[in-house]
Amino acid sequence: MTDISAVLDRADQNLQDSIDRLFSLVRIQSISTDPAYKAECRKAAEWLVVELKGIGFDASVRDTAGHPMVVAHHEGATADAPHVLFYGHYDVQPVDPIELWEDSPFEPKIKEISPGRKVLTGRGTADDKGQLMTFVEACRAYKEINGSLPIRVTILFEGEEESGSPSLKPFLDANAAELKAEFALVCDTGMWDGDTPAIAAALRGLVGEEIVIKAADRDLHSGLFGGAAANPIHILTGILAGLHDETGRVTLDGFYEGVEETPTNIKEGWETLGRSSESFLGGVGLSIPSGEKGRSVLELTWARPTAEVNGITGGYTGEGFKTVIAAQASAKVSFRLVGDQNPAKVREAFRAYVRSKIPGDCSVEFHEHGASPAIQLSYDSPELTKAKAALSEEWKNPAVIIGMGGSIPIVGDFQKQLGMDSLLVGFGLVDDRIHSPNEKYDLKSYHKGIRSWARIMTALAQK
Amino acid sequence: MTDISAVLDRADQNLQDSIDRLFSLVRIQSISTDPAYKAECRKAAEWLVVELKGIGFDASVRDTAGHPMVVAHHEGATADAPHVLFYGHYDVQPVDPIELWEDSPFEPKIKEISPGRKVLTGRGTADDKGQLMTFVEACRAYKEINGSLPIRVTILFEGEEESGSPSLKPFLDANAAELKAEFALVCDTGMWDGDTPAIAAALRGLVGEEIVIKAADRDLHSGLFGGAAANPIHILTGILAGLHDETGRVTLDGFYEGVEETPTNIKEGWETLGRSSESFLGGVGLSIPSGEKGRSVLELTWARPTAEVNGITGGYTGEGFKTVIAAQASAKVSFRLVGDQNPAKVREAFRAYVRSKIPGDCSVEFHEHGASPAIQLSYDSPELTKAKAALSEEWKNPAVIIGMGGSIPIVGDFQKQLGMDSLLVGFGLVDDRIHSPNEKYDLKSYHKGIRSWARIMTALAQK
Repeated sequence: MTDISAVLDRADQNLQDSIDRLFSLVRIQSISTDPAYKAECRKAAEWLVVELKGIGFDASVRDTAGHPMVVAHHEGATADAPHVLFYGHYDVQPVDPIELWEDSPFEPKIKEISPGRKVLTGRGTADDKGQLMTFVEACRAYKEINGSLPIRVTILFEGEEESGSPSLKPFLDANAAELKAEFALVCDTGMWDGDTPAIAAALRGLVGEEIVIKAADRDLHSGLFGGAAANPIHILTGILAGLHDETGRVTLDGFYEGVEETPTNIKEGWETLGRSSESFLGGVGLSIPSGEKGRSVLELTWARPTAEVNGITGGYTGEGFKTVIAAQASAKVSFRLVGDQNPAKVREAFRAYVRSKIPGDCSVEFHEHGASPAIQLSYDSPELTKAKAALSEEWKNPAVIIGMGGSIPIVGDFQKQLGMDSLLVGFGLVDDRIHSPNEKYDLKSYHKGIRSWARIMTALAQK
Repeated sequence: MTDISAVLDRADQNLQDSIDRLFSLVRIQSISTDPAYKAECRKAAEWLVVELKGIGFDASVRDTAGHPMVVAHHEGATADAPHVLFYGHYDVQPVDPIELWEDSPFEPKIKEISPGRKVLTGRGTADDKGQLMTFVEACRAYKEINGSLPIRVTILFEGEEESGSPSLKPFLDANAAELKAEFALVCDTGMWDGDTPAIAAALRGLVGEEIVIKAADRDLHSGLFGGAAANPIHILTGILAGLHDETGRVTLDGFYEGVEETPTNIKEGWETLGRSSESFLGGVGLSIPSGEKGRSVLELTWARPTAEVNGITGGYTGEGFKTVIAAQASAKVSFRLVGDQNPAKVREAFRAYVRSKIPGDCSVEFHEHGASPAIQLSYDSPELTKAKAALSEEWKNPAVIIGMGGSIPIVGDFQKQLGMDSLLVGFGLVDDRIHSPNEKYDLKSYHKGIRSWARIMTALAQK
């Protein structure tokens, strides 16, 4: 029986060094979606390998067609210890609009944002560098006290999670035997609130698609041609405006195939969590749920599919005014999927709808940006029960089983390609501003996250 | 009686030098809408003053709150010679998308684009530097032969025509006595085709407006918030898509107040010009008229009002994909006006429509980008008759009286502020690519444009 209290004490003693190590990782500008940061992504992978080797892992940078993977192995304390695959990602989102950051995104800081509440600031502190480092630092404390880990651990750190993970499937296929474990631990999710840990059991899937509508073969003067020549922005806005009906439902043919109503008892459970529209949206300056009418914000974000325009551009967007009819206009659109919605069918329905709206003298190009189905995990597996107990003990508050609005495609890939379920535990908070300027991670999330993983590893090792 | 043939011969002899002078002006990067080019705009104004002084004008750079004006005066050969105000603009459009230019936009060249057809390439060659230089070079030839000009000339060159002319009205007000003439000559329009000169008698007006829709107080993760949080791109696309009905008509309340149907005899005249949808749109890779159903392309672009989105942006528009719900989205929208449409009423109708579509927890900002009513000039003034005869003689082809799709706000300002009508004569062609990459001006337009002004000045001087 491991002496968990000594490991937890060591995690407490290590905290300042743990923060320094996370800050070293955050300083590396590993933006995966922008080719300009390719060398920085590799640098992050190499940094992680050095750290993992330092605590006894057999770790290596593994090349892919895109950004490299980090794979590391560590045996368990006993030959029959359970074997888990821990997953995180070292890449981060772009930082624009850069002018809205209070500090440089890659110069992390500790800040006290309210009395007694300290946060770690910088791009990737919450998504996902801080989260993956909670596990690395828990392993460090364990090794320093016991010279071993209670369970056998394989680690997989990806560098393309924020850009559609193009290399992941081939890598899992090529290395299935090496990566297969009994189940996966995925640390890329959040707490219910600052005091209440959570395990996610339902995740929405994602289809990303970019459309480029082309009209005239050059930009036109709107005085000479306006009223006669096709304006691709008009075509595009018509298409996008038609994606939702007046009740907020998505209009694509067959879009709701595979979408089941959430069971009443689950919805009732969510209602007891006390998350009103006002409390959920008030934190970001909004108040009115915008999607399907008559559903709670938890249902809208956990259990209902969506169509969202994530970016749009066309024509003159600089300072001042230019009376131009653009040659082309484009939009990036994503669909969040639930239940058994088929990503390929959703993409094809969207494309068919778009094609039906293109005038005969214009054209459209489609660019695929990733696809993953929704995930529904078992509510009563032994791993989930053990992890729930360990989290509840650390946080002195019962852990809750929740849904997740964001997709984590890796969970579907682990199911499909490696036959593994995943345990989704993370310590992010709703105000972490992931994907936005001024991203942060609570110091409490980082500290108690490290302690939580020490407890979870201990619990999982128990028969 | 002026010896016009000697003046025309001198224009012919001067041609290479005339081209060189135009190229010097084109090399100055006088993009008025972008504050980064402020010094270049002044440089263009100063260059023009030097040239005008060189041919005997009393010329000066005149400061405004924005880019400077050029004002120059020259007396006529006789005390009772008519007095005209010649107007052009030395500022140019931005050059983006720069990657589509075959040559650097500010390094003008002479190119032979088909056997015997030479063009002058570069930003501003057609709009409006080449055009205004036709008049300057005509004055030069006149001065060199006769030592005088047949009419009294005041010149006004503006530097803000491509950015809404914010300084023009105050400048006209402050200098009305100095600038007032019997009528104006405005050289910022086109020929009917490469062999057929034209005088424009109807011009559409313009209202420019930018809207910025604001939703959450930060960019949001579409997984965490998608389906519940307002997406400003959805609001914006809904607004823009609703600007037109299924027949192509603009839906704003009262938009068509002041719009008269074009008289049947005028429309019949236009039909004889042989401008089909295919010939008009085919030159830019299109074929289907996109605006109001059942009207010819000439009617659509000369005699019908429009609403066009000139630019749109929101969310992530870089490489790759970012699953963000943007905090804001914006669009630049312009309305072309005809007849007696009231620009202020059109703007207010648009704003009221937009406001009616903004959810209670979102907001909208409006930014005004210029306004001018439509212009309808007299078809039978003596000046128009003389100019038509002079043009017909130079081009060996009858000049036609046409409408113009683009607004030239200065014409309305001259009417309203100085009580002057304008004679709209220019030598641009439909394929000049003004406002687009690879702008050009036909060498024939430049050469015969210079000769045309020499003939027009002569004709206007005759009793």
